[in-house]
Amino acid sequence: MPLQTLLLHFEEDQASAARIAQAAGMATACLERHRFPDGELKLRLPPALPRRVVLLRTLDHPNEKLVELLLVARTARQLGAQHLTLVAPYLAYMRQDIAFHPGEVISQRVVGSFLAGLFDAVITVDPHLHRVATLQEAVPVPHTVVLSGAPLLSDWIAAHVQAPLLVGPDEESAQWIAQAAARHNFDFAVCHKIRHGDRHVEVTLPDIKVAGRSVVLLDDVASSGHTLAEAARLLLAAGAASVDVAVTHALFADNAVQLIQTAGVGKVWSTDCIPHTTNAVSMAAAIADALLS
Amino acid sequence: MPLQTLLLHFEEDQASAARIAQAAGMATACLERHRFPDGELKLRLPPALPRRVVLLRTLDHPNEKLVELLLVARTARQLGAQHLTLVAPYLAYMRQDIAFHPGEVISQRVVGSFLAGLFDAVITVDPHLHRVATLQEAVPVPHTVVLSGAPLLSDWIAAHVQAPLLVGPDEESAQWIAQAAARHNFDFAVCHKIRHGDRHVEVTLPDIKVAGRSVVLLDDVASSGHTLAEAARLLLAAGAASVDVAVTHALFADNAVQLIQTAGVGKVWSTDCIPHTTNAVSMAAAIADALLS
Repeated sequence: MPLQTLLLHFEEDQASAARIAQAAGMATACLERHRFPDGELKLRLPPALPRRVVLLRTLDHPNEKLVELLLVARTARQLGAQHLTLVAPYLAYMRQDIAFHPGEVISQRVVGSFLAGLFDAVITVDPHLHRVATLQEAVPVPHTVVLSGAPLLSDWIAAHVQAPLLVGPDEESAQWIAQAAARHNFDFAVCHKIRHGDRHVEVTLPDIKVAGRSVVLLDDVASSGHTLAEAARLLLAAGAASVDVAVTHALFADNAVQLIQTAGVGKVWSTDCIPHTTNAVSMAAAIADALLS
Repeated sequence: MPLQTLLLHFEEDQASAARIAQAAGMATACLERHRFPDGELKLRLPPALPRRVVLLRTLDHPNEKLVELLLVARTARQLGAQHLTLVAPYLAYMRQDIAFHPGEVISQRVVGSFLAGLFDAVITVDPHLHRVATLQEAVPVPHTVVLSGAPLLSDWIAAHVQAPLLVGPDEESAQWIAQAAARHNFDFAVCHKIRHGDRHVEVTLPDIKVAGRSVVLLDDVASSGHTLAEAARLLLAAGAASVDVAVTHALFADNAVQLIQTAGVGKVWSTDCIPHTTNAVSMAAAIADALLS
């Protein structure tokens, strides 16, 4: 894909765009953005585009960014792009995949079909899919690539923690934790979680000896931090020697990092899918590979 | 349209929804909205919808709201709505109607076609159209209604200001000012404006005697307030007895009202197209008429 392919990005994504483009041998161009006092956006693309265009936009805090995608993708087509790839290391609105109560918006399907109307291909990392098996069911574009942060986080943990015990904060993380553990033959276990609200969760530790262990809590995404904080408290109370945290997506709302550190967590590591001070592992090479395949 | 028509609205629009629905003899239902810590929205509609549904959503600070429209409109169709009307008293993204520089996003066309993909009809008030003649060119839905705040603001001014002189802050307002003036046979004139940036404008007064006059600056929209402030300063320096302000759309970014009051403006009046402390005139009856027609 590299020849005649241009990677478009916004100014705040300059660094990760450069890493990906260098690894993929592509050119980059920064989108110009002006925000009017009334909240409207004025955007400008390079006036002439090659046939293949890649847009890099991670979709944490997604609503404003979805409008950017609409404006950029439609304009890119007018300016000559014939094949548009969205690289969204974090993909939004993947969690609401059924109506839990009648009348609820199934936002995964609505946003997925919105994106499918704009792009020909979507590349993402660890999308939070529950009840659908493939990303293509949620985002019905002709071509999807799902990468995982688990192998790179596993490598990072292997290099920084002696004989770690990987712990997943809830059942949903089980398969993912197993994959990360298998890569370096780590011990692993998974907590049981009951959610009572956005910021109120109940966690039960797995039936495994944690006393004296160097625990790493591993998950695909950390948002409010309440689950990780609760799990860390229980693990330390059960005698864990240390508890560190590694996540693919550092959503970390408000004071989430402070919250989990107050609970006794030592190090916090994340991939660069969402730019954050905890970023320790870059997905750039994996994304570049996906673009080249 | 009233029988079997349901007007959907968000909680913050309860008051204006009630006014419109009462005037149109419609039922209303409030959409449930929950915002997750990561910025995603969870929305819920009434589980069973009639064939005809109206969504009330004014589109100041539009980006988040455009995503709401996407989620609500697509779900409304799934829940049985066959004809969807958007009532957007303020319609966003109508100003960027050409690419001033190559590569610029023509957001009017993109957002217009996005809305046309969601709705069958659009009702709005004084959309800020420059180079397109009709709303339907910008928002290609089968049915459009364009209302104006000018007659009601003119009536309000007639009831509150003795022998007013209506002044438009720029040439774009000329036709609109003439219409408001004609309704009560007010004197009127229009300033000349050169814009140097979002918050930097140069205004020249019209060649008309303002000394001793009760001036009302009238415009379709007030955003940063810099144009109105500059015009007010010049009018008062030229001897105007008073300068009040009347606008359809009270966008009023940041400290805009304070800015124009510091420039010597007395009263500030607006329609309720955008909820604001300056709202003096309700468009509810006019919107209800449009829904019934």
